[in-house]
Amino acid sequence: MVGGRDSRKRRVVKLVVVGGDAAGMSAASQARKRKSAEELAIVVFERGHFTSYSACGIPYWIGGSVKDRDALVAREPPAFRKAGIDVRIRHEVVAIDLDERTVIARDRDGGGTVREQFDQLVYAAGAVPLTPDWARTGGGGVFGVQTLDDGAAIHAWLDREPAPRRAVVVGGGYIGVEMAEAMVRRGLDVTLLERESQPMSTVDPDMGEKVAQAIRDVGITIRNEAEVEGLDVAGGRVRAVATKDGTFPADIVVLGLGVRPNTDLAGDSGIPLGVTGGVRTDLRMRVPGTDGIWAAGDCVETVHLVSGRPVHVALGTHANKQGRVAGINIGGGYATFPGVIGTAATKLCDLEVARTGLTEKEADTAGYAYVTASVKSTSRAGYYPGAAPMTIKLIAEKRTGLLLGGQIVGREEAAKRIDSLAIALWNRMTVEEMTALDLSYAPPYAPVWDPVLIAARKATDAVHAAMD
Amino acid sequence: MVGGRDSRKRRVVKLVVVGGDAAGMSAASQARKRKSAEELAIVVFERGHFTSYSACGIPYWIGGSVKDRDALVAREPPAFRKAGIDVRIRHEVVAIDLDERTVIARDRDGGGTVREQFDQLVYAAGAVPLTPDWARTGGGGVFGVQTLDDGAAIHAWLDREPAPRRAVVVGGGYIGVEMAEAMVRRGLDVTLLERESQPMSTVDPDMGEKVAQAIRDVGITIRNEAEVEGLDVAGGRVRAVATKDGTFPADIVVLGLGVRPNTDLAGDSGIPLGVTGGVRTDLRMRVPGTDGIWAAGDCVETVHLVSGRPVHVALGTHANKQGRVAGINIGGGYATFPGVIGTAATKLCDLEVARTGLTEKEADTAGYAYVTASVKSTSRAGYYPGAAPMTIKLIAEKRTGLLLGGQIVGREEAAKRIDSLAIALWNRMTVEEMTALDLSYAPPYAPVWDPVLIAARKATDAVHAAMD
Repeated sequence: MVGGRDSRKRRVVKLVVVGGDAAGMSAASQARKRKSAEELAIVVFERGHFTSYSACGIPYWIGGSVKDRDALVAREPPAFRKAGIDVRIRHEVVAIDLDERTVIARDRDGGGTVREQFDQLVYAAGAVPLTPDWARTGGGGVFGVQTLDDGAAIHAWLDREPAPRRAVVVGGGYIGVEMAEAMVRRGLDVTLLERESQPMSTVDPDMGEKVAQAIRDVGITIRNEAEVEGLDVAGGRVRAVATKDGTFPADIVVLGLGVRPNTDLAGDSGIPLGVTGGVRTDLRMRVPGTDGIWAAGDCVETVHLVSGRPVHVALGTHANKQGRVAGINIGGGYATFPGVIGTAATKLCDLEVARTGLTEKEADTAGYAYVTASVKSTSRAGYYPGAAPMTIKLIAEKRTGLLLGGQIVGREEAAKRIDSLAIALWNRMTVEEMTALDLSYAPPYAPVWDPVLIAARKATDAVHAAMD
Repeated sequence: MVGGRDSRKRRVVKLVVVGGDAAGMSAASQARKRKSAEELAIVVFERGHFTSYSACGIPYWIGGSVKDRDALVAREPPAFRKAGIDVRIRHEVVAIDLDERTVIARDRDGGGTVREQFDQLVYAAGAVPLTPDWARTGGGGVFGVQTLDDGAAIHAWLDREPAPRRAVVVGGGYIGVEMAEAMVRRGLDVTLLERESQPMSTVDPDMGEKVAQAIRDVGITIRNEAEVEGLDVAGGRVRAVATKDGTFPADIVVLGLGVRPNTDLAGDSGIPLGVTGGVRTDLRMRVPGTDGIWAAGDCVETVHLVSGRPVHVALGTHANKQGRVAGINIGGGYATFPGVIGTAATKLCDLEVARTGLTEKEADTAGYAYVTASVKSTSRAGYYPGAAPMTIKLIAEKRTGLLLGGQIVGREEAAKRIDSLAIALWNRMTVEEMTALDLSYAPPYAPVWDPVLIAARKATDAVHAAMD
């Protein structure tokens, strides 16, 4: 009616987000993009000091190649508030009541608690570092590396200590290796304690060997099959790491033992967890069996599209995607997160390491019979200046030739080639189909047969040979 | 029978290959790999001095970044002969008789001709530069850039001339631009004459503009919409290039006007040509309607898998693949070449340019309705040292959202990202599906949203917006 107004007050829907890093803030931002403040109120509780930061950048900041901590923060609370997202940092959600539809958050600075009612809830509490009993000594100088607050604590410790000499990093995965290199860059003697027979067990041993060599070349001492028994603490601070095979003096100990989904609170609240301990979701990031409860990021369980198994993979790129998907759906749109294929990359000095799909061991576990092929090639035409060596390994299903996994170790323009393998794998290509791919060729970028194509050819031969 | 031998002499099958560069030698090598010399005799006629060389490397050799001509030659005639492939360089096939199953080759050094009988024939005569009438002056200092012999002629000319000052490059495609830069590196003043409104018309004008700027930044003068009318020749050598808009003094003129399939001989012999002038083949690189005639490389017509149209694309990577496919089939194996999707890349100083699929103009011509999306991002996390800007443009079919094409211009780790787009396109992904791709992420390699994913997101929005 002209001039008429709907006098019924439309109720504002309230969205509460638990966790203000990648997933939580992506969800909040996407929901806000689609719903105005008159339609949707958004409150985010973040227990730390920071929102939307790059945890993956922490080792580079500590190592000094990134100068400024703030550079790691994509967007700060005031910017979110300006966009109509009520971010409350230093507020830790300690209880969720699904029936009452309330959360209780503890104010870590001001003290006390606040209670907040919600219509929609995004659980995005991230992951927490695996911390074995021996690490809970209370001694100073022992650090995990999960949040930017953790990173800031290490950074402050290194700046504050008069003459730190020896660092021991426990765990040779991505974070462990990156932190070990960062400690070298800070001038420390670094020992890396790895439980398996080799660090970087995210790639097969034949590829991991090349990484181990590069780690040693940086000056890091590797102790494989190291079983940590405890920390020696004196005067309130750590002095050494004790293992079955000896004691390693340490002024600082960095734990890179992996993470687990931060879902104790979710589990206590009756939010269903999967076999990996992560929150279960559907394709739209809704928590099944609930109404208006969503989850995203390092706290959720997802599916590995090659093995078909539930997996927990804490990685910023997934967290951002999942948060975005949740936020689009909350905002009335439609988007899905279909799962992951295990793509990952890291850099150790100038060594580039990347993987996608399944390793041999993972393929075994998943029940695949497979063949492998490894090739050495170069990043550019052999005659072009700067051509750097690169090894590509492919794993293909026996008989069908379906690509199951790929690993790359090289010196430049190597790691990003994993994306080619990832997209081929995502689309269920066979290695033989891959030999025909129309990839870019120019001498500054590739030999006339790109390493990916050479690998596909060799893997095709291996598939054929296994048929005889 | 024990001790018995088959006394019938088995006839050796003879394979003749016309052209000893990428396609021809790949075919010969693959056939040889599968059939011994007792089963298959292989004779290759090559009119030039070189086998299996990288024509794409010529500008880098002339520009000085590749020091040694021989570095461009992957494998020389003696190595092939040792492998049981009878390579006869400086022999130009001048007649093919499909009924008599013979070829006649002219010995360009020794004089005279040789006649060779064949059972199987691979036509791999390559491409020839487009040479308009005005370029046939007979004046010295005018060069095409197609074969390594052409490149050697330019190199020798530059070394021999006392003080060459001015170069005019006619044609602003890949070869033209690369040669223009090479001439700058050799210290010449370079003018680039382009017939269209902008050089590098293999990408859309909005992307080409960035390339044009980089060309100018190198110190090259660009003249767009230049219509060459003739060459001024005096004293047996070129002095200037005359256009409708003025005359450009030149000590050396390089023609980069594109190429056409070198199929006059094939056509005369009754080998069927397609609408592009290239030899028609089936998926196995067999010439249809013939018995034991194959073709591969820059002389064949292939199909563009996005437009569905026949195309002629002279590119080493296709030539190698097609030659390999022909050789595998000749050797009794099975392989196919399904077609191309128009992937290409080049580098201009530190500017990386790459494309795949269809440009806007090509999509129009093919009959697609489409939307586009361009995004600016960086090669690495924004805070990571060396993060370089990059622009990605996607073209997606209206309504379906199928990726139709992609273009990238950037400074580092940009061009090779085109492979991600190429593989997504090859597999008929929609841009919305692409937003979920599990691409590698680590600060040294990508922002947490890889530029490819950001572009896919924006293109998805464009597809949705076009549905309203």
